[in-house]
Amino acid sequence: MKVNGVPTRSIWSLDDGQRIGIIDQTQLPFCFKKVELSDWREVVDAIATMKVRGAPLIGVTGAWGMVLAIRDNPEDDAIHAARSELIASRPTAVDLQWGVDQIVTAVMPYCPRERFRMAVKMAETLTQANVLANRAIGTHGARVIAELYAKKRAPVNILTHCNAGWLATVDYGTALSAVYIAFEQGIPLHVWVDETRPRNQGLLTAWELEAGGVPHTVIADNAGGHLMQHREVDMVLVGADRITAIGDVANKIGTYLKALAAKDMDIPFYVAAPSSTIDWSIQDGKHSIEIENRNGDELRYVKGLDAKGQVTEVEIISPLTNVENPAFDVTPARLVTGIVTERGVCAPEFLTRLFPEGARRRTRW
Amino acid sequence: MKVNGVPTRSIWSLDDGQRIGIIDQTQLPFCFKKVELSDWREVVDAIATMKVRGAPLIGVTGAWGMVLAIRDNPEDDAIHAARSELIASRPTAVDLQWGVDQIVTAVMPYCPRERFRMAVKMAETLTQANVLANRAIGTHGARVIAELYAKKRAPVNILTHCNAGWLATVDYGTALSAVYIAFEQGIPLHVWVDETRPRNQGLLTAWELEAGGVPHTVIADNAGGHLMQHREVDMVLVGADRITAIGDVANKIGTYLKALAAKDMDIPFYVAAPSSTIDWSIQDGKHSIEIENRNGDELRYVKGLDAKGQVTEVEIISPLTNVENPAFDVTPARLVTGIVTERGVCAPEFLTRLFPEGARRRTRW
Repeated sequence: MKVNGVPTRSIWSLDDGQRIGIIDQTQLPFCFKKVELSDWREVVDAIATMKVRGAPLIGVTGAWGMVLAIRDNPEDDAIHAARSELIASRPTAVDLQWGVDQIVTAVMPYCPRERFRMAVKMAETLTQANVLANRAIGTHGARVIAELYAKKRAPVNILTHCNAGWLATVDYGTALSAVYIAFEQGIPLHVWVDETRPRNQGLLTAWELEAGGVPHTVIADNAGGHLMQHREVDMVLVGADRITAIGDVANKIGTYLKALAAKDMDIPFYVAAPSSTIDWSIQDGKHSIEIENRNGDELRYVKGLDAKGQVTEVEIISPLTNVENPAFDVTPARLVTGIVTERGVCAPEFLTRLFPEGARRRTRW
Repeated sequence: MKVNGVPTRSIWSLDDGQRIGIIDQTQLPFCFKKVELSDWREVVDAIATMKVRGAPLIGVTGAWGMVLAIRDNPEDDAIHAARSELIASRPTAVDLQWGVDQIVTAVMPYCPRERFRMAVKMAETLTQANVLANRAIGTHGARVIAELYAKKRAPVNILTHCNAGWLATVDYGTALSAVYIAFEQGIPLHVWVDETRPRNQGLLTAWELEAGGVPHTVIADNAGGHLMQHREVDMVLVGADRITAIGDVANKIGTYLKALAAKDMDIPFYVAAPSSTIDWSIQDGKHSIEIENRNGDELRYVKGLDAKGQVTEVEIISPLTNVENPAFDVTPARLVTGIVTERGVCAPEFLTRLFPEGARRRTRW
């Protein structure tokens, strides 16, 4: 997508995979700053501190981190050590393990001195595949929006939580890819953007939508239920960090609450994600998905602009006060109307029909 | 309740009703500051800018505002003009109209020169009645907590939203009155405190609980569903801004989402409020209760301490970004386990049995 008219992706490689470029997303929406990473430990840090965030982007970034690790030491032991450390940088994101393992699996059959070249090739393939998958997700998702517009004949109001936009992927995004493509197609729409405490990723979504000229309104996370009760929401559309084989969805904390309100008000609730987000090895998300408890300082400190327009942080909760900060929750499949993947849209119970190879993988594991 | 060991209420009269004292709650939890108001227009401002907040406190403050207006001009026309302006300062709070009208009704039978004296007398009665009602609410609510403890035999985890504590009333509070009294009785408990964006009244709740020594943990508004899913919540207990005759509950925005999660997880959801909060004239809350849309700057600016420990505000959302800020939502009676009033606890459908005089009032209106 474009930033100030310049086509931009959220990750790119430099010098044939010797370095990678990212956007420091902890500075957004206040400051648009690019950063170069040349060591795999910097990649671990960038993932852990959420300079890059969003399940699909974390996956691709993990892959490039593995590339840099293999460049430094292509021996088996070193690869396994780096693999473990990269995967541990964000425990909930299945995409991270997936991205890292794609590289490991691709290079292992080769002798160590060939591995870096193969790793770069695989990482480039994954990067491009993500862009194509997101474009396909967007096309399928836009059809859902178009159908709602055909019924309503008035702008479609879409509520989204967190940031499932191009900043969370290599390009286009997942949930927002559908919004961008529907908007490109001329479908009148408006996006309700959940602030998404504690990290306020909704403000990244608002920044993206602003850059793309898409009408939107930011709301507190508390407001969505009220808006749904009053029919000001026509659909909920979110991304996912992990989807189980039966369609339970782990996504940013608070998603479950919005899914409950959508169910209560009979409003369709869609999840858009590439199939790499599906973890075929698990069924019941509530008991099988480890939910990351992040540092309470995310809740205690809020970043914004001070009176002089400088990015600064204020302390809203004393360090002496106990806080708990679970980063994700699990929305059970019974609350999900449809899952939008690169292969099409389906109800959660039909995921295995859309991805029969996934069902086979599950039985092998 | 006590602040630094000193018994403190959230409103008090001075010089036989010539002035009133309040706590400037916009400065809390960072700074504990008392303010004196000597003109009724200052009272309108204090209510509108939320220096005082919380339905029961707004009601009593409105009553004292009416007292000051009558002191200045006890003629019928002036009383009606002041009444309208006071009521308009917070449209959703039925307690405000109730408090103001208690004074108006009490003084009208008297000749103008007697009205101020009668108004002070009535305001003092209302103030004391609020304290007694809250103490009774707390006693009834504590019994519910005690029953949960008797079953669980481990600390009872209570989730609360917004601030329904002594700061929101004259003393004790409503939902928190039950917590304080249960805690005084030695029942082991712990409170999950919703941050309550956009105004973060949860931080007032945390400040109160800290002052009272009650174990508590602050969470993002998004986290409650996840905690309920994992059985880390034994009951939800909130206040109310307005309750309809059939038990629909208007309370701080976001309450409805927590009620949905409680229902989904079969966790009891209780509302604690004095009977003055019940509006017997309406049934269906969703369509009959006007929801205040407050200034979007409440969402755009966040107050906290800067690096030097000074209270300051940061801008997290640009003034150019659209925001919408509904202040309340309506939780339908079907999601409410029980309503805790000064007269006892009952299921929403039995409100009229607990308050037969309310049912009669409804038919008269």
